[in-house]
Parts: sequence; C-alpha cells; structure tokens
Amino acid sequence: MTKPFMFEKPLGMRDTLPLLYETKALVRNRMSVEIKKWGYQFIETPALEYYETIGEASAILDQQLFKLLDQQGHALVLRPDMTTPIARVAASKLLKQQIPLRLAYSANVYRAQQREGGRPAEFEQIGIELIGNPSISADAEIISLLVDVLKATGLKDFKIAIGHIGFLQELFISILGNEERAAVLRKYLYEKNYVGYREHVKSLPLSSIDKQRLIDFVSLKGEENTLSKAANLLEHETGRETLQDLKELALQLKEFGIEEFISFDLTLVSHMSYYTGTLFEVYANQVGSPIGNGGRYDSLLEKFGWNTPATGFAIRMDRLTEALGEIKETEASECVVFSPERRKEALDFAKEKRERGINVTIQEINALENVDAFTKAFHEVHLYIGNGGARSE
Amino acid sequence: MTKPFMFEKPLGMRDTLPLLYETKALVRNRMSVEIKKWGYQFIETPALEYYETIGEASAILDQQLFKLLDQQGHALVLRPDMTTPIARVAASKLLKQQIPLRLAYSANVYRAQQREGGRPAEFEQIGIELIGNPSISADAEIISLLVDVLKATGLKDFKIAIGHIGFLQELFISILGNEERAAVLRKYLYEKNYVGYREHVKSLPLSSIDKQRLIDFVSLKGEENTLSKAANLLEHETGRETLQDLKELALQLKEFGIEEFISFDLTLVSHMSYYTGTLFEVYANQVGSPIGNGGRYDSLLEKFGWNTPATGFAIRMDRLTEALGEIKETEASECVVFSPERRKEALDFAKEKRERGINVTIQEINALENVDAFTKAFHEVHLYIGNGGARSE
Repeated sequence: MTKPFMFEKPLGMRDTLPLLYETKALVRNRMSVEIKKWGYQFIETPALEYYETIGEASAILDQQLFKLLDQQGHALVLRPDMTTPIARVAASKLLKQQIPLRLAYSANVYRAQQREGGRPAEFEQIGIELIGNPSISADAEIISLLVDVLKATGLKDFKIAIGHIGFLQELFISILGNEERAAVLRKYLYEKNYVGYREHVKSLPLSSIDKQRLIDFVSLKGEENTLSKAANLLEHETGRETLQDLKELALQLKEFGIEEFISFDLTLVSHMSYYTGTLFEVYANQVGSPIGNGGRYDSLLEKFGWNTPATGFAIRMDRLTEALGEIKETEASECVVFSPERRKEALDFAKEKRERGINVTIQEINALENVDAFTKAFHEVHLYIGNGGARSE
Repeated sequence: MTKPFMFEKPLGMRDTLPLLYETKALVRNRMSVEIKKWGYQFIETPALEYYETIGEASAILDQQLFKLLDQQGHALVLRPDMTTPIARVAASKLLKQQIPLRLAYSANVYRAQQREGGRPAEFEQIGIELIGNPSISADAEIISLLVDVLKATGLKDFKIAIGHIGFLQELFISILGNEERAAVLRKYLYEKNYVGYREHVKSLPLSSIDKQRLIDFVSLKGEENTLSKAANLLEHETGRETLQDLKELALQLKEFGIEEFISFDLTLVSHMSYYTGTLFEVYANQVGSPIGNGGRYDSLLEKFGWNTPATGFAIRMDRLTEALGEIKETEASECVVFSPERRKEALDFAKEKRERGINVTIQEINALENVDAFTKAFHEVHLYIGNGGARSE
C-alpha cells in the first residue's frame, strides 16, 4: 500500500546521494584543514536550542524558525544560524581564558521555507568566528582566511565585496533624518532592487542635491577608488571615520597579498541584522546568490552577558559546490563475486586488495538476481565461482 | 542582563568542545575510509521528515520523538534513527538499479529525554545498510565489516553478541502459547532484568519442566556451543531452522577470521522492533551500554512499497569515543604576535609555516589585553615587534 507522502520530504528538505556526498566531504575536508592552519578550533553545538535565547538573538525572521515545544513545555528552535550558538558557548564556557577566541564550525542550519522549489530549509555552513578583537587586523585576518579557504577548495573565479553598514547608515540618516526612512531604502538595497530604490528616492521630499547624492550612492561599487568617491558624497565628518577604517582594511589586505579577490560595495546590506561594521559577501562564477558572507557583530555577545566585539564569516556548502561543479569523480571500485565453496579464497583476495587501499565489494552469487546488472557498476569484477581459478573481467 | 536559560541548552543537548570534536573527526574519518573500502556508499538525508512515514515506521517510542508542525500544517519529526530514512531513499530512488544496495551514513539522530542527567537527546550514529540480500552471507558480511570498522578506530577489547529474535520468539510462543505472555518476558530481557524474569517465570501457570526450560534459556550465552545447548531446549522442530542459520553464520564468520570477536546470546532483544532475524550488540571495555547494534529487518522496506530484505548496523559515536578514551592530543600550534609596522613580515612568516603544514595563529599585539594569557596556549610563540629581528620563544 502506498501512503500519501510515502516518498516525500518536508518542504525544502533534500537527500544527498553518493556523488554529491563525496564532493561535499572532499570540499569540507580541504576547508577544515585550511581553517585549522590559521589556528581556529572547531566546535559543535546542538541542533535544538531554547527559543528564548538563540531564537530571539539570531536575527532570522521569526517565520523562518522551526519551533517546537519540549516535554517540559519550553519553546525550542532548530538553530537557524551558527553565530548565535557559538556566541552562547563563547560567553558561557572556559574558552574565555584565551582572548581573542578563534572558533570554527561545520554544521547544518534550518530555515523554514514558504513554497515548493524555493530555497533549501536545511543547509550546511562552514564558518569561523573571531571573538574579542576590535581591531581592523581582525577583519583583515578573517577576509584573508576566507580567500585561502576558498582557494583550498579549488575555486578560482571569486570576488569578495566589502561594505560598511556604519557608512551607509550614517549617510542615510544625515540625508533622510530618521531611521524609519533609512529602513525603507535599506530594504531596496538588501533586495538589490536598484530601480525601486531610484523611484523611491525621486519621490522623497528632498533637495535635488540630496536626491542626487542618494542616487550616486548606489554606484559606489568596484575597486579601491570607490572609497575616495564615497568621501565626495559626504558633507560633514559623519561617515569619514568608517571610510578611514575601510582604507586601512584595504591596505592590510594588500599586505596579505589578496587584493585581486577584493572589491568594495558600500551599498551592501545584510539580512543578518546583527552586523555593526564591516560586512562582506562572496560571489563566485555562475552562482546567482552569494556563496558566503560575513562581517563584524560587536553587539551580539552582549546578549549573552559578555560585552566583547566579534567578526566572522560563513560559507554555504550548497552554493560553493554548485560553483565548483562536480569535482569528485566516482572512486574506482572492484567487486568479487563468489560461490559458497570458494568463499574463503574470495574473502582473502578482497582483504588483500583493501589493505592496498582499493574499495572492494564482496557478493555471494546465490543472492544475486541479476549478475550483469549488479556487476556493471564496477571498474573490475573478479569471479571466484565453481572449481576453476579466479577470473577477472 | 542575564536572562533565564541564557547559557542553558535543552534537556539532553550538549556542546562539543575542540578536543572531543577532533577525536570524533579522527574516529569518523577512520570509520568512513574502512566502510568505503567494503564498497558502501555514503548518503545524507534531512533532519526533518514527515511524521506519518518516518515517525511511524521508525520503531522509536512516540514519546521519544521530537514533533513539530510545518507551516502547511503537516506533522514533522526530527529523525529518530537513520535506518528508516535510508529505507525511504532506497525504495524511492534510482539506487534500486544495483541490487543488493550497500549504503552508509554518518548522522545525528534525535530522541527526546524525560529527565536531566540522562541520555543524550542528540547523538551521532555511523552505520551501514545492506538492502536486497536475504542470504546469511549478508549478515556475515556486515558483522565482519563491523569488526574491521571498530579495529580501524583503534578499539581493541570488544565483543559482538549475536542472537536471533526468531528463535526466542518461537521458543516463547511454543511454551507460553500467545504473544501477550511472550511480550512480558521479552520486556524483562530487553531491560536485562534477569531476576525479574525468573520471578515472573516462577509465577506462570506452567509445568515445572517448561518453567525450567524458560529459566535455562536465559543462560544461553557465550561461545559457539551455546547453539548446541539451545537445540536441547527445543521439543519440536520449531526454532531448529533459526539455530541452523546461526550455525551457518558462525561458520562463515570463521572464514572471515573474526571468531575471536564473536559470542552468542540468544536472549538478545532490541528496542528496535523492526528486527526480524539475526540481531547483535557490540560491547567494549568499560562502557556499560552497547556501543553499537544491528540486525536483519526484512519487513521495513515493505512500508515503502518495496518487499525486500535488509540488514545493517549502527555505531554510537559517543559511546565509542568513551570506549577509546582521549586518543587525539592537541595538535602542535604556533603563534605569531606582531606590531603593525612589521605586519607584512609576520604574515609572510606565518604563510610559509602554514605551507609546511603547521597551524599558525596570527595576532596583532595592539588588540591583546593580556599577552601572556594569550600566548601560553601555544607550543611556540614568534614575536615580530618593534624594529628588532624576530624573536621566538
């Protein structure tokens, strides 16, 4: 009897079959090795957390949270991001002894989706957090680590766009006067709806000079001279400090020797509302959405009772593997098909092959309905059947 | 402000800190390599499944399921085991082409707990499923693979106890007459409450010979001669076939050369109600609960519309790493502390070290509140400060 939903998975949930699984495993391993080389330590946190702490601090829309009640009646959430749980661990555990803290993770996160064929509701992030270091050297370090991690995966064609939520916010407030109006424009930028942005700016009760400044603002993208152009948009000192920070960051990134991977985009706005300063997104060839993002979040740890700055990034495994393409080929594998009277011979043969690092499937012939269908997936087939010698094909 | 629950995790949920994380990663990698050498392919399934299919088929008590509603109003569960989701994938996907199917997984599963300090509500299982092979050679294969996987982790002192749910069931029904009475005795055995079992047997309205047979039954544990002793308990043909199967299995396991790791325990009962034949548990030195278990489940796939036999095992990472002890030592790591004017020098030095495979943390000195506290965790510290040459300590 076939039940409804028998083979179905919940909205946005996916199975990962062997070839993609091995690709992900290979990529994950290369990334982990590089991350550890920079002195970051991996930790794991539970899939379920209290809604009251992690759910509320996580900056993910409430409607995207998977919520449930435990048997004691507490509201729980499936973790929607990893930065917030790591903040909880960092603030609560003995790890605090060694500030700045360098932590890393590789974990699935969960965000409920509204419609079929949309985004995944479960996806893997690999990321790092550098906690307790307010200096620009921390931002430079994690962006350089990000470049090395991506290079380690074999990815060639990628760019990190860097912005600063402080600059954007100060410019908007100085022109628009209040946060309510700034929020409307930020939303257009977050959605990368530049037509809508321009239309909206035109409709605002502003001087034509201020309108032009807001319209010129959206073209503040590209190489380092973007930062000089941005300075021209400013009427007062407001915002100059953040530009100075970005210039210092650009300088340090050159010392890391990674300027070819960097561009600036002062219109960058993230859905992660906890960012407080520098923020960035990674784009790779042919993938429409960012394969990674990050930035400074100097206020999040305070929610866990520890007033300390932090910066970090997360890479999305699904989008990264899409950008990489199928880099993992099926491993060469062999098969030994045997009849019961020659079992010992076949097992010894397989064991010896495995000791030499070869993948060998063993299979008693009596249990095979269709020998040809079974054996055709293997690169080599060895037969130990009847009284003759071994036959390989 | 400290909120209630601020640092708390839901009941049975745990963080994994760096040292245990790396131990698990090392052990997981050794196991995966061995599993792939036997021709098994790893797949991944979602954490959330429909309650109606996976929840009901999973053989986990309903009160142990984490249940929630999705936004479309469907009941979902956090997967309580991996065998059932793998059965769903195996029955639904193109994988069916190559029967028998050999699949593997490494995944967390979720079982709600009732009290503090008890069992974990989230734990990792590494396991395999061999689907579409009814023969004893399949059971022998997976038990031998289990031995090789455990040996690959470095575990030395372990034993696999093998039973047969069919033998136990046939003996109980032939003496007790009905399933209701059999279920009561099975529960005592599952709880390994042998005193309770004996008391209950004494209270039953049976002949003294039958009572003695039930009491003799609980001592059917140990080496291969257990199987001969078991034959003596039988009055009729019932049960002889299952004993014959176990004898054939013992013979095949000798051909694999793993008899030293095997014992028999015909009183073995699993909480996984889907087992239909041979079943087994793995015990390792000093760990009270089994570190792994498995067996034949010939009826589960039918729930997904595919009437095919299957057998498999799962190893619990938490108990395995407990049995292994701390096998992973902190990796040697070095640190470069620099002042801004010598940044480039310090970065180049760190880069060159990393290229030689060494873990190197970089840290600008200005961002350090306490240099000594920070550097004491490293095996080597290199200072690039002021105008002098490098100083390492």
